[in-house]
Amino acid sequence: MTVTSHDVARLAGVSQPTVSRALRDDPRVAEATRQRVREAAAQLGYVASDLGRSLATRATRQVAMVADLRNVLYPTLVEPLHDRFADHGYRMVLLAERGDDRSSYERLLDRSVDGVVLTTTLLRSSLSRALQERGLPFVELNRLSGRRAVDGVTADNRAGAALAARLLLELGHRRIGAVLGSPDASTSRDREAGFRAALADAGIELPEARTVHGGFGYADGERGLAQLLSSGGRTRPTAVFCVGDAVAIGALNHGKRAGLSVPDDLSVVGFDDLEMASWPCFQLTTVRVDLAGMALAAADRVVQRMAGAEGPARVQVFPTELVLRSTHG
Amino acid sequence: MTVTSHDVARLAGVSQPTVSRALRDDPRVAEATRQRVREAAAQLGYVASDLGRSLATRATRQVAMVADLRNVLYPTLVEPLHDRFADHGYRMVLLAERGDDRSSYERLLDRSVDGVVLTTTLLRSSLSRALQERGLPFVELNRLSGRRAVDGVTADNRAGAALAARLLLELGHRRIGAVLGSPDASTSRDREAGFRAALADAGIELPEARTVHGGFGYADGERGLAQLLSSGGRTRPTAVFCVGDAVAIGALNHGKRAGLSVPDDLSVVGFDDLEMASWPCFQLTTVRVDLAGMALAAADRVVQRMAGAEGPARVQVFPTELVLRSTHG
Repeated sequence: MTVTSHDVARLAGVSQPTVSRALRDDPRVAEATRQRVREAAAQLGYVASDLGRSLATRATRQVAMVADLRNVLYPTLVEPLHDRFADHGYRMVLLAERGDDRSSYERLLDRSVDGVVLTTTLLRSSLSRALQERGLPFVELNRLSGRRAVDGVTADNRAGAALAARLLLELGHRRIGAVLGSPDASTSRDREAGFRAALADAGIELPEARTVHGGFGYADGERGLAQLLSSGGRTRPTAVFCVGDAVAIGALNHGKRAGLSVPDDLSVVGFDDLEMASWPCFQLTTVRVDLAGMALAAADRVVQRMAGAEGPARVQVFPTELVLRSTHG
Repeated sequence: MTVTSHDVARLAGVSQPTVSRALRDDPRVAEATRQRVREAAAQLGYVASDLGRSLATRATRQVAMVADLRNVLYPTLVEPLHDRFADHGYRMVLLAERGDDRSSYERLLDRSVDGVVLTTTLLRSSLSRALQERGLPFVELNRLSGRRAVDGVTADNRAGAALAARLLLELGHRRIGAVLGSPDASTSRDREAGFRAALADAGIELPEARTVHGGFGYADGERGLAQLLSSGGRTRPTAVFCVGDAVAIGALNHGKRAGLSVPDDLSVVGFDDLEMASWPCFQLTTVRVDLAGMALAAADRVVQRMAGAEGPARVQVFPTELVLRSTHG
């Protein structure tokens, strides 16, 4: 025989709607009553059905994180997002994106989730537009679409990249290169802009021959540095700025294979300050981004919107700072 | 005005149930009809509701992956699992586990998912038992609970560890240590057993003073090696077997900080063959596990069970092989 919420109600001495509310920790039910209902449910082995709950409340208590799983940053975001949503009583669904994936649209817009965190959005993302049109609460984390009136949480990418540029200038570098990401990602665009602007302030150019655009992975760093080093001796860079730490670590790996000494032959500066940047065999000089703090802020923002918070959209910008280790000189 | 499946049916000239079936790519609907329905749905801007679909079919088309997000292997499993389930028309939900998490029980047993992949199961897992009792299709991937009549996919951990032991013996090592994982994880238990058995065959002991048990992360490797090296000169190991590559890389990081030369002062052998094992600054000698292949096999197994496949449960064991790089000598 299947145990129903009516059986739980009878045992706990409350009404059936109170059982439903108590089991989803609705604050309108007194804590003592919630406790009594939970005990009755445990005694009877009752588990509430999410389907029934969804129909009753029109809410799924489910939030989606959309990420390109090939991006090395996503594992650092998923744990703090997941845990923060769990604290708020939401289950997090991870949806993988591969560029402009038609199927994630449908899965997000079919009302199976109450809110969305977009983490690997491209500029002018049509997914972001579709969510906005449907009025589904969402926030853009780390990368922004650049659409107006959208909540976002990101790092101060321009300022961080300018710190990296000024460090290299102070060390006397003039032939400076950059391994950048996709120009369709706001992080790469803003880091490139901040880096270029700080060089320009010092009268130093970043010519096309000393820039590479690619992805954000280890292999992109390997390929990118190989390409920059393939140019002749007098145009070859003495320092390279990388759009992210994974790219920088790929560049260090390539440099090691090519027999380069870092920083004697080449300075390398990254961005993000991933855990492995501090490992002894890298000791990467980089720009720190508070990825965990940003993830928590993004989760909180979506939770507020799902709870009906009104007010204008805003983009919360986290400060960045230079972390000096051993790859600059 | 909200567009319903009846509007789509009218425009496509089919019945309403045919619309539902066509939009979930049911093979009972001819491809030409499915195409006509999709076009009608697109023209009207119709998006099927997952809630309605769930009630109609009693299936959620949703599968959960349960993982301890602190485990470094989970990101290597999530992408192949996600993509394989997507190929089969299932959305994958990621549920984080922290030991024996009461809340993931409820979320798995409330019928909001059709199947489950457990990836960081402990021996005699009560979650595994609960799924079995409810008859929810599930598979244990990488780690096994050791329960009978449960589908599983794992590597040949004993044989792989024996390969590592024989390599170290052939190189002449006699004072051999091991940084192991939790004895509650089948992978650690089996790797330890295989390693010990191969040493015992050669008349070599693995005394308690030369073993450490901990977790599976970088920090566990750092701490573990530090502990093994803290013992006096004559009992200090000349070679260390690590339960996983993350542990081995942590050990290499500690060795580097402590000024040890690998393999001259100490040989280190890992397990898994993660991408970073091949990076030039590690060049880790390790035992290869086909994690991606195992993930695909696990996804296929759950899909078969969700489709009603009967037959006895089985554990599929993937072979392992030694990968010789530069940390043994």
